[in-house]
Amino acid sequence: MPAISSKGNLMPQSPIRKLVPYAENAKKNGINVFHLNIGQPDIKTPQVALDAVKNNDIEVLSYARSEGSEVYRDKLTNYYSQNNIHVNANDIVVTTGGSEALLFTIGSITDPGDEIIIPEPFYANYNGFSIASGVKVVPVISSIDDNFALPKIEDFEKLITPKTKAILICNPGNPTGYLYSKEEIEKLKQIVLKHDLFLIADEVYREFAYDGAEHHSVMKENGLEQHAIMIDSVSKRYSMCGARIGCIVSKNQEFIQTAIKFAQARLSPPTYALIASEAALDTPQSYFEDVIEEYVERRNTLITELKKIDGVKVANPKGAFYCVAELPVKDSDDFAQWILEKFHHNNETVMVAPASGFYSTEGEGKNQVRIAYVLNKEDLKRSVEILKLALEQYNQ
Amino acid sequence: MPAISSKGNLMPQSPIRKLVPYAENAKKNGINVFHLNIGQPDIKTPQVALDAVKNNDIEVLSYARSEGSEVYRDKLTNYYSQNNIHVNANDIVVTTGGSEALLFTIGSITDPGDEIIIPEPFYANYNGFSIASGVKVVPVISSIDDNFALPKIEDFEKLITPKTKAILICNPGNPTGYLYSKEEIEKLKQIVLKHDLFLIADEVYREFAYDGAEHHSVMKENGLEQHAIMIDSVSKRYSMCGARIGCIVSKNQEFIQTAIKFAQARLSPPTYALIASEAALDTPQSYFEDVIEEYVERRNTLITELKKIDGVKVANPKGAFYCVAELPVKDSDDFAQWILEKFHHNNETVMVAPASGFYSTEGEGKNQVRIAYVLNKEDLKRSVEILKLALEQYNQ
Ligand SMILES: Cc1ncc(COP(=O)(O)O)c(C=O)c1O
Ligand SMILES: Cc1ncc(COP(=O)(O)O)c(C=O)c1O
Repeated sequence: MPAISSKGNLMPQSPIRKLVPYAENAKKNGINVFHLNIGQPDIKTPQVALDAVKNNDIEVLSYARSEGSEVYRDKLTNYYSQNNIHVNANDIVVTTGGSEALLFTIGSITDPGDEIIIPEPFYANYNGFSIASGVKVVPVISSIDDNFALPKIEDFEKLITPKTKAILICNPGNPTGYLYSKEEIEKLKQIVLKHDLFLIADEVYREFAYDGAEHHSVMKENGLEQHAIMIDSVSKRYSMCGARIGCIVSKNQEFIQTAIKFAQARLSPPTYALIASEAALDTPQSYFEDVIEEYVERRNTLITELKKIDGVKVANPKGAFYCVAELPVKDSDDFAQWILEKFHHNNETVMVAPASGFYSTEGEGKNQVRIAYVLNKEDLKRSVEILKLALEQYNQ
Repeated sequence: MPAISSKGNLMPQSPIRKLVPYAENAKKNGINVFHLNIGQPDIKTPQVALDAVKNNDIEVLSYARSEGSEVYRDKLTNYYSQNNIHVNANDIVVTTGGSEALLFTIGSITDPGDEIIIPEPFYANYNGFSIASGVKVVPVISSIDDNFALPKIEDFEKLITPKTKAILICNPGNPTGYLYSKEEIEKLKQIVLKHDLFLIADEVYREFAYDGAEHHSVMKENGLEQHAIMIDSVSKRYSMCGARIGCIVSKNQEFIQTAIKFAQARLSPPTYALIASEAALDTPQSYFEDVIEEYVERRNTLITELKKIDGVKVANPKGAFYCVAELPVKDSDDFAQWILEKFHHNNETVMVAPASGFYSTEGEGKNQVRIAYVLNKEDLKRSVEILKLALEQYNQ
């Protein structure tokens, strides 16, 4: 029998994949499972986007232009300039989700054996895209006690080798919810300029910045034009994860032209999704205000309730819709499985994402979980209550 | 300035990309350009698929299951069994186009430096996906004088090294239009069993088999279960290239489970496109009969007319909607550009794809072009007339 590649064997399972059968089994047994484990919001997609697809008059569902139509990229530049990011249509490559934007970016700037430094904990699929390209993720650890702020410059510099091609940050962060300050972005700027690296910023949660905090895009930094690469997506912004539209943005034309070659090989982003995404750019500002208000209330509810549980430590997220919580357990993988398999309260239980999947340093995050506040306040409150009761029983 | 990777530099341009500005310029000058250069059919997408999307009642456009819903994969198994291909839902991974199916397949079975043998000329993007995975394409040349039939077994065996992981065929072929016989598939079976290789068959043109010929899928071969991987797509079958839905099919569960890990990393195929693709499975048989009839007439028109031109040699395609023609020119890249830039007849000209992009052996195919018969008969006839006049003038 012909063999799977080492790369294929190395590809990680999704951190929650092993838990899915337990959740399904619980449901079969009539138990209601609150899903705090995934970044799939329950927020309604803007009506203007949904309507555009329903009202389409396509007769031949054709390929779209590989890098996205000029019309759509032009409209995107308007959206960006409202966010004080000034780019041209030519600085944009439209992709099939932020996922593909990450894959094309890593493909364009790395060869097998190269390294990318990423503050840890990080979005688990950075691992998958890196492994798919034969690239090594080099983690630099950030700490829950520090709210997962940017590690010290020295910590980065210690890790830089001739193989290092880029630093990749997620801002605001999944799973941390951390929002980088202007000062932190400028520190990163110093490092990448000094060592001639790319700075990739995954800004798919741009809109989700709370408490009046401003989002600092890498695209706003003067002098960083040839180094900054922004990853973006409509998935979270418009709660349209299923569309599969994202983009790469950079002023570095050599990089953009390379990314376009990757885009050409796969021919086209999805056409219906482009219709939805283009229309979504007309979403009224009030939509975002309502959504942000809702997320802030959810976050406040979640954090307040979590802090009431003995032995739980939680970072203070200022963005995105996740938080990392440290639980009074040794092994959160085991606990997350146990709560689905063995625990329920009034026929209800919760599913959380064990944090080990967000670390690549072996052993890190073993007592942490990621909680996504993608449910309404009532359900969140009830979920934390279940978590509390479960911890009591688990630790008996 | 940080550098692009060697891989990024190696990624090929699409073979027709350099011609696009000349075509655009011709259009600006009021010249009508007949596009024989792309595999984008003008055939209407089945109404049942278009309607399903228009009538969707989505409120939150959510991620779909990474490997495709069980419902869709179940319905796919019905479609396959009508084609005498007997598989289970678990043997299928739904992908974002056949393109992604190719990428995940190559990623799952190769490591950087590995080799894949492909009969040449071949679909140009096999190069792109291979390079993206750090894999070397090893071409085995097939000849226009032989209609591009399968090269001899010895020709394959000469090329097999310890690095060889798979043989990849396209059946029916793009750009050749060649349909492999049962005997040819069985020859390939012998080779891959003897050398323990995967046999990847890109069967996205399955429906397009003409003159009563039957399509022989690698999935029909007994004893090949652990070796055969089928690549499929809705793009051509339902003329819905813009949907971006394809799939990988294999009985090799270790391979399928690996491909699913790649699918998980990118989260989800596009949701609207899944709705269209699921509905498309209810397309009435009469749709295909009409389409095949149309393509056969187009092919006959094209081949008959091409053969009338002095010095033109053309293979006899039995499938897909392409043919490769040898022209009385030294350099078809130059000719294809010249005809856009310098030639028009009654304000009309044509765009063809120079065949060099379909070869990886340097210098092969220099006097060949690929012609896609994706236009109606009138336009095809007129296109060949223009080609004839252009050749006369070009060769003066
Ligand atoms: C940080 C981050 N980046 C990228 C993505 C990819 O999202 P998509 O491919 O849906 O745009 C996600 C999805 O959860 C994410 O959390
Ligand atoms: C032979 C072959 N395989 C695969 C593809 C990829 O098609 P898609 O990604 O649209 O499914 C094409 C498209 O032209 C093709 O010709």
